[in-house]
Amino acid sequence: MSSQALAVRCGAILDAVRVRRPRVHCLMNTVVQRLVADGLTVLGCIPAMTGSVEEVAHFIGGADALLINLGTLDADRRQAIRIGTGAAQARNLPWVLDPVHCDASPPRLAFAQSLIAARPSVVRGNRHEMAGLAVDEAITAVTTGEVDWIGHGARRIGIGNGHAWLSMTTGTGCLSGALIAAFLAVEADPAIAAATALLAMGVAAELAAEKSAGPGTFAVTLLDALHELDGGTLTEKARIADVQG
Amino acid sequence: MSSQALAVRCGAILDAVRVRRPRVHCLMNTVVQRLVADGLTVLGCIPAMTGSVEEVAHFIGGADALLINLGTLDADRRQAIRIGTGAAQARNLPWVLDPVHCDASPPRLAFAQSLIAARPSVVRGNRHEMAGLAVDEAITAVTTGEVDWIGHGARRIGIGNGHAWLSMTTGTGCLSGALIAAFLAVEADPAIAAATALLAMGVAAELAAEKSAGPGTFAVTLLDALHELDGGTLTEKARIADVQG
Amino acid sequence: MSSQALAVRCGAILDAVRVRRPRVHCLMNTVVQRLVADGLTVLGCIPAMTGSVEEVAHFIGGADALLINLGTLDADRRQAIRIGTGAAQARNLPWVLDPVHCDASPPRLAFAQSLIAARPSVVRGNRHEMAGLAVDEAITAVTTGEVDWIGHGARRIGIGNGHAWLSMTTGTGCLSGALIAAFLAVEADPAIAAATALLAMGVAAELAAEKSAGPGTFAVTLLDALHELDGGTLTEKARIADVQG
Repeated sequence: MSSQALAVRCGAILDAVRVRRPRVHCLMNTVVQRLVADGLTVLGCIPAMTGSVEEVAHFIGGADALLINLGTLDADRRQAIRIGTGAAQARNLPWVLDPVHCDASPPRLAFAQSLIAARPSVVRGNRHEMAGLAVDEAITAVTTGEVDWIGHGARRIGIGNGHAWLSMTTGTGCLSGALIAAFLAVEADPAIAAATALLAMGVAAELAAEKSAGPGTFAVTLLDALHELDGGTLTEKARIADVQG
Repeated sequence: MSSQALAVRCGAILDAVRVRRPRVHCLMNTVVQRLVADGLTVLGCIPAMTGSVEEVAHFIGGADALLINLGTLDADRRQAIRIGTGAAQARNLPWVLDPVHCDASPPRLAFAQSLIAARPSVVRGNRHEMAGLAVDEAITAVTTGEVDWIGHGARRIGIGNGHAWLSMTTGTGCLSGALIAAFLAVEADPAIAAATALLAMGVAAELAAEKSAGPGTFAVTLLDALHELDGGTLTEKARIADVQG
Repeated sequence: MSSQALAVRCGAILDAVRVRRPRVHCLMNTVVQRLVADGLTVLGCIPAMTGSVEEVAHFIGGADALLINLGTLDADRRQAIRIGTGAAQARNLPWVLDPVHCDASPPRLAFAQSLIAARPSVVRGNRHEMAGLAVDEAITAVTTGEVDWIGHGARRIGIGNGHAWLSMTTGTGCLSGALIAAFLAVEADPAIAAATALLAMGVAAELAAEKSAGPGTFAVTLLDALHELDGGTLTEKARIADVQG
């Protein structure tokens, strides 16, 4: 697809998410739950974060997409994640794996690899996290960084939008993962859903940085910018390249 | 009571809370603990959030009011809540039940209903949450939304203050519940304590929105506005109606 | 040491932390994990917060310093803390104890005292928390308040920087503890590492308050100010007195 056609399509997906208002269930770390909930909400999505084994299947029964984020993992969340991915598969629900800090802990790396065997739609991490994982070509692999790369089969999509303050704001990577889940609820092609999420984060970051005095205010204006962002602006500001294999 | 008399009384209660500085213990979800702690603190209250079964009774032994919030509920918190409500009853401490997302999970709905049997002073939820719960007329029932409604016996109090960005800021409903608990520490009539909390949130939201560029900055300026708010301003800006049955 | 010489040395330590970028592992409360992670990150440090018994030793194996914070303590975290302090001792890693709310709960006070027996480099609390703890003179004791006091042996360092809004922002005390851990990774004298952390918080608070409309915006501009702060500014603005015994 031409870069321009892809940018137009991503813009349309952003507008669709605000209309469809998907419910995104997040089994995630305790550090940045609020940022992720706020980021989903300002885009029109409805987040929920319950992670108890007794309730997680009930919540996922009403969800449109699932985020599995391994930050601050513990035994209870591991158990809830197994139930959650099972419930997602039973309902054919798209889900995203964010293997936070799997490079720092061998048991977490092994758990992340076992989750990939359960077939997430997308795996998103930074290059340190992704380096240790085997993700087969049928699963969309997203490596975020100064340039974000999305791989699916022989396809490679590169995204150049963003700002240095994203890496100084805890949880923006986690929010990217949550947004990928949200866009999977309205777009069947996981590489394009992922591209929409990364463009939304990158373009919003650029707009927010103009109104910020540092990474503290940036974390706040980023939510304002995500709230205001529409498909037309996303398309216009997108720096995206689609390299078909 | 006339609307004007009620608004004056709520203003006086707001001023009283800043003088009395009640300790409010919160057994609550992990998502918005910081927002709730900050919101209580800027009003002069002293929050604590410990939820372990070993310690919760010690903390409630020094508290002036208790918030039970069912967001991100799990087995440990259910156990702590049972201890907490028991400790509150033993000390005759007012407590608030916030049945977050009880409409999304049958076990949570059943747990919320069983907590109502333990006689909270106030139950606060949105209309989806409140719809499934049976709250008898001796307990104050608060349903928040575009207009907030407080019911107690045949009395109905309506509050029209607020701003659309409240619903885009995760945790403002939870903070409302916490503020009701805070005002219960200084006001014996639970309907009036609840009215004060909802007026404080609604008026602060209106003042904050004027200084905000979107829901991100709004979440921040809301705390500034709560910090600055005094009884006189609350009374002056209140849009409240008291419908005695 | 003269106050001026101490202020210069603290400024150099601040600049060193940005170059060395220590990894700081935090076993801490769930309320303000994000603020602490953001505060460490804007100073160039790399935070991690995992607290599960299966993984904590792996994370501490790659860390340069450890923070033990007792807020919202529970049985799982107590177990993780025991593993964590053991792992720190085995690697000769500096660690800080922040005995949050130990004055409110006898079991927490006893646990805090038992941790002091495991020889942290620094214990930091407010005067209510520190009053109940026996900290021998070989451990650096930091009591924060309107004036912060650092005691080590017969030495007393006083720091007068700060702002009233610090006490209205949940988690700034916790962040002080985390910054002490960060500076311990680059400075062997624990009293001077602690002084650097408290100066950084206090000076940043003064700069942030000038750009804030209240405690809500202050919590945000504080991160901007910590991000911008350099050793020269720290030295210039320091109000510090070193009373050698």
